[in-house]
Amino acid sequence: MLGWFYGGTKSTNVRVSLPAVCFVWQIAMIVLFGVFIRYNEEADTHWQEFRRENNISSDIENDFYFRYPSFQDVHVMIFVGFGFLMTFLKRYSFGAVGFNFLVAAFGIQWALLMQGWFHTLDPATGKILIGVENLINADFCVAGCLIAYGALLGKVSPVQLLVLTLFGVTLFAVEEYIILDLLHARDAGGSMVIHAFGGYYGLAISWVLYRPNLNLSKRLNGSVYHSDVFAMIGTLFLWMFWPSFNSAITDHGDGQHRAAINTYLALASSVLTAVGISSVTQKKGKLDMVHIQNATLAGGVAMGTAAEFMITPYGSLIVGFCCGMISTFGYVFVTPLLEKYLKLQDTCGVHNLHAVPGMLGGFIGAIVAASATEEVYSREGLINTFDFEGDFADRTVGTQGGFQAAACCVAIAFGIVGGGCVGLVLKIPIWGDPADDNCYDDEAYWEVRECFLNSPPVGAVAL
Amino acid sequence: MLGWFYGGTKSTNVRVSLPAVCFVWQIAMIVLFGVFIRYNEEADTHWQEFRRENNISSDIENDFYFRYPSFQDVHVMIFVGFGFLMTFLKRYSFGAVGFNFLVAAFGIQWALLMQGWFHTLDPATGKILIGVENLINADFCVAGCLIAYGALLGKVSPVQLLVLTLFGVTLFAVEEYIILDLLHARDAGGSMVIHAFGGYYGLAISWVLYRPNLNLSKRLNGSVYHSDVFAMIGTLFLWMFWPSFNSAITDHGDGQHRAAINTYLALASSVLTAVGISSVTQKKGKLDMVHIQNATLAGGVAMGTAAEFMITPYGSLIVGFCCGMISTFGYVFVTPLLEKYLKLQDTCGVHNLHAVPGMLGGFIGAIVAASATEEVYSREGLINTFDFEGDFADRTVGTQGGFQAAACCVAIAFGIVGGGCVGLVLKIPIWGDPADDNCYDDEAYWEVRECFLNSPPVGAVAL
Amino acid sequence: MLGWFYGGTKSTNVRVSLPAVCFVWQIAMIVLFGVFIRYNEEADTHWQEFRRENNISSDIENDFYFRYPSFQDVHVMIFVGFGFLMTFLKRYSFGAVGFNFLVAAFGIQWALLMQGWFHTLDPATGKILIGVENLINADFCVAGCLIAYGALLGKVSPVQLLVLTLFGVTLFAVEEYIILDLLHARDAGGSMVIHAFGGYYGLAISWVLYRPNLNLSKRLNGSVYHSDVFAMIGTLFLWMFWPSFNSAITDHGDGQHRAAINTYLALASSVLTAVGISSVTQKKGKLDMVHIQNATLAGGVAMGTAAEFMITPYGSLIVGFCCGMISTFGYVFVTPLLEKYLKLQDTCGVHNLHAVPGMLGGFIGAIVAASATEEVYSREGLINTFDFEGDFADRTVGTQGGFQAAACCVAIAFGIVGGGCVGLVLKIPIWGDPADDNCYDDEAYWEVRECFLNSPPVGAVAL
Repeated sequence: MLGWFYGGTKSTNVRVSLPAVCFVWQIAMIVLFGVFIRYNEEADTHWQEFRRENNISSDIENDFYFRYPSFQDVHVMIFVGFGFLMTFLKRYSFGAVGFNFLVAAFGIQWALLMQGWFHTLDPATGKILIGVENLINADFCVAGCLIAYGALLGKVSPVQLLVLTLFGVTLFAVEEYIILDLLHARDAGGSMVIHAFGGYYGLAISWVLYRPNLNLSKRLNGSVYHSDVFAMIGTLFLWMFWPSFNSAITDHGDGQHRAAINTYLALASSVLTAVGISSVTQKKGKLDMVHIQNATLAGGVAMGTAAEFMITPYGSLIVGFCCGMISTFGYVFVTPLLEKYLKLQDTCGVHNLHAVPGMLGGFIGAIVAASATEEVYSREGLINTFDFEGDFADRTVGTQGGFQAAACCVAIAFGIVGGGCVGLVLKIPIWGDPADDNCYDDEAYWEVRECFLNSPPVGAVAL
Repeated sequence: MLGWFYGGTKSTNVRVSLPAVCFVWQIAMIVLFGVFIRYNEEADTHWQEFRRENNISSDIENDFYFRYPSFQDVHVMIFVGFGFLMTFLKRYSFGAVGFNFLVAAFGIQWALLMQGWFHTLDPATGKILIGVENLINADFCVAGCLIAYGALLGKVSPVQLLVLTLFGVTLFAVEEYIILDLLHARDAGGSMVIHAFGGYYGLAISWVLYRPNLNLSKRLNGSVYHSDVFAMIGTLFLWMFWPSFNSAITDHGDGQHRAAINTYLALASSVLTAVGISSVTQKKGKLDMVHIQNATLAGGVAMGTAAEFMITPYGSLIVGFCCGMISTFGYVFVTPLLEKYLKLQDTCGVHNLHAVPGMLGGFIGAIVAASATEEVYSREGLINTFDFEGDFADRTVGTQGGFQAAACCVAIAFGIVGGGCVGLVLKIPIWGDPADDNCYDDEAYWEVRECFLNSPPVGAVAL
Repeated sequence: MLGWFYGGTKSTNVRVSLPAVCFVWQIAMIVLFGVFIRYNEEADTHWQEFRRENNISSDIENDFYFRYPSFQDVHVMIFVGFGFLMTFLKRYSFGAVGFNFLVAAFGIQWALLMQGWFHTLDPATGKILIGVENLINADFCVAGCLIAYGALLGKVSPVQLLVLTLFGVTLFAVEEYIILDLLHARDAGGSMVIHAFGGYYGLAISWVLYRPNLNLSKRLNGSVYHSDVFAMIGTLFLWMFWPSFNSAITDHGDGQHRAAINTYLALASSVLTAVGISSVTQKKGKLDMVHIQNATLAGGVAMGTAAEFMITPYGSLIVGFCCGMISTFGYVFVTPLLEKYLKLQDTCGVHNLHAVPGMLGGFIGAIVAASATEEVYSREGLINTFDFEGDFADRTVGTQGGFQAAACCVAIAFGIVGGGCVGLVLKIPIWGDPADDNCYDDEAYWEVRECFLNSPPVGAVAL
């Protein structure tokens, strides 16, 4: 009955809208790919000619071999990592992993187009030439939208998620263009571009979609024992492959190598402080799975910008140390306050895992960039690392630091303003979102079969 | 009582037969490996000499570095992907993941021998020299048998599965030899060789083993909430790593690069149409986990042949679009009809995910091959892609298309005829298969402990 | 009440000790990293200069590209493999996967320091220069401690585990130094250094911490249906990626290639004999999940030393054959005897999976080394494989075999003696370990939410 609360009947029947969106958009993708997208010279049958022309001595120097293992790790993070991390709710595992799958599968196609138009459109032919690096960037782009989904988990329909993704990818491509191309900031692992943007984008949408009677679904807003174990699959694949995420598109050679090491160390450090704070803030020192599932990852988020810089191994540990702590504090203290005072309902706590650590990561990157010296980097290393070439050949590290900080503000602004606008679109009562007493429930959008084992198997011994 | 239905007592006691088969066959493997199998020059301690003799400038050009990451992805698909995809049944998860493990572990050994005899036997020394590419091919070969297992899931004993694998691998090696060597067809990701063959092989066996009273086990032929989540682990690892599957043994350089891109795109497209059809065919537009778990993968199956060709990015999207749709329709409409009219009991719906998309993939490959032009591929690219060398130097793309189509028919014929014969062997009542009222039940072959949580933990709050 | 059994109250409140240890140790890590750890020349921005100076023709020859895919596989084994393998207990999944995570995250930092001091400390600068190989070695080092955790699963507090890891990593670094540097033994996959050491280390600690009244927790010392499925995630990721584990730090080129092939084969062979023995030793031939989860991995453990040698493919199969059998026999017969007569409580049976197969692997390595010939290896291959250079240029294969065997004894001795001493430290009643009637229970250290589905969802059909 409360479904009627804010105007419009709340029917979760998406039998028309969901197939319509899926088919129309997929057909649009096919048409646009037909017009715009081709293989680049490393994925094209002309590769052998290209090799000869460019004196490339071996097939192994095809970018595929530099980046494909990292790409696959990133791919696992997007589909298994994000998907399973969100399965922690007791009755929303289908929605978590299934809608994550749907949204990401659409988003990567749209991202190839949007990022292509902004970054790699060949002006002569009007074509976007794609290779493995584009696939990684498309996965990255989708990550921003999946982070936003985390704030909305259980409260939106799949159609809303697809709309969120359509706009999210578009906004992402624009802010990325401003940050990487116009401001010439560096952000290899996307602390700013992915996490700060995605986090604030989701929070802004969630704020617009505030549900005053969400406590009617309170019984389902929590985990059960084994849903927490499922969520650990997501946590661990994110944690393990984050070094690949932050190093996937950095420079060949030392760039990838260093980014992986720094991320590995920051993540290790996060785990200890997340555990420490989790224990100290709970009654009897018991650990809370929410913290272990999320705050342990904060080091990876916060190293997204600085991982490719010479932040030093102990610098990485310090970043992880602080962010693991801050993130856990966020889960314990800030999330309840945000809901109470800011009317911000954040199912997965993306504020604590993405928004804040992403923002911090952006500013850490700015500081590390500003304090770079030729002594540490070597002249050549400095140019390579910060890409001080072409129009930017004269930029100093101090200026670079300033632009990095500005970039972080741009990402946050895009997230908040963009999320606010998209939130208004999603508020239109045509998207089939659930009523307030029907949230966090797979019944709304899935054929749900019986639950576990109403009849024990023959021979099972009761405890 | 109904266990006696078609002759012979139905005892699932495999205490003699299973150990006997395991030990005898494993000893046979050791003897045959002793006689036939050695390391190839890239895995042998003579590699440094080989490098010098062949002017290979660096260790990185060892085929290991071109293929090992893809191999590991394929390995994950075989053991976790196929294994967990089949855990969806409420009481057959041990059998799904455990027998999958057993069958694959035996199959890869036997495949190394069978494929070695047909493809890489050195006539001078009579030895099969193996390297990482052979390991990938062995995994591929086993995939065919695991697909067949999908049709039989819950209805056969582990001994039957091992027999199925023994013959399946043998048939596979022969059809592969005919298709790749004699017909000189291309089938890098095995739409024909693996999926069409494996699908029809399983269906034919299932048809021979038809159980008229299988509805006695109907109570266990379905999923529960969390078994569907387990199955999504399988789905996602298959989906994510399919680009590696289709590119694992393609040409170094552009071949691997292009195959990965094409498969990535086809899979993304499949997801949207699978979701669309799932929603539109269900009451109230609710999604069915069966479709999400399976039909989303159809794009990968269907790109198995054409992935290495210049099918273009939008061509890949179209393939995924159509096959995601067709596969979901299959689950909704065809599987029930097959059971009703053709007496074909197909537990996992391999008809819709492997047999039909595999067959379509074969014909798509034929069409794409037949329409290849020098303009698109370049002369050199055409020769490399279709391997128009040696005896086949004069082959035209039109002829190649014809041979591709013929190859697809060969794969299907091998599957159906071979499966029929193997089905008759498996019908002999000595293999310990379960009675009709005892199917889909781990109790038959596993020590099953109590089910979940008959006693809630101290402090647990009831809902 | 029985909690008071052996002196001191048994409070599992770790609200002071756990945060204290996490924070103090993490700060210590930061300080020590600040003093000692820097990037090596392949991860440093001076890489381009290094390349020119050393005539390295391409970025792809950075060690990152040789080892990073293997590193990520090893990383998955450590965090998902070990973590999920231990989730089999019905109410200890949080502790299994969560404490595994904590311990490994601390251990890898400490291992980078300890292994650095012993192996790669630059005497001129006093710095440890790290790259991807050090990350792999740190993961390896932690594996030893996680194996030890297996013996203690459910019976110790997280603080005890951190202490175990602090000492375990220290002991590991010393025995590794003795074995690899002083004895100049080869042990690429760590049969001796990791598995024999880790296994006996855990067993010795468990023996010292013997709990006479552990049967008070008997109700929780076992699996339920779905916890066994979770454990299979661990098993399979260990099994699949073991070829990467054994080849991760072997020589570039043929060394990595051969080690992967050998391990792949030994593992396949283990599966068949583990299944065979499991079936033949159980009533009615039913398989036991414990054996499938564990003994199938014995081939990988036992190939840890010999994988890089020319053991031949059939030799690998024989090793897997024997160890799969021995390990399963161990689970069936030896573990109960150890508990009964030796007062050795070994939760995961590390005796059967790590201690014994690791020891056997060490001696297999000794035999294979002693029987190496120039005819098989080539002169150059022999030198490369056994590193007969510098001080060891004159060593014969026979001598090498002797040193390999001695190395195995060193590893076992370190495990037993070190474990005994550490066990005494852990016996001090200040670490917050659970009482005998409170073992195997996540309630002790985790906020545990309700269990599965006390209220069936609306519309769920009871069986």
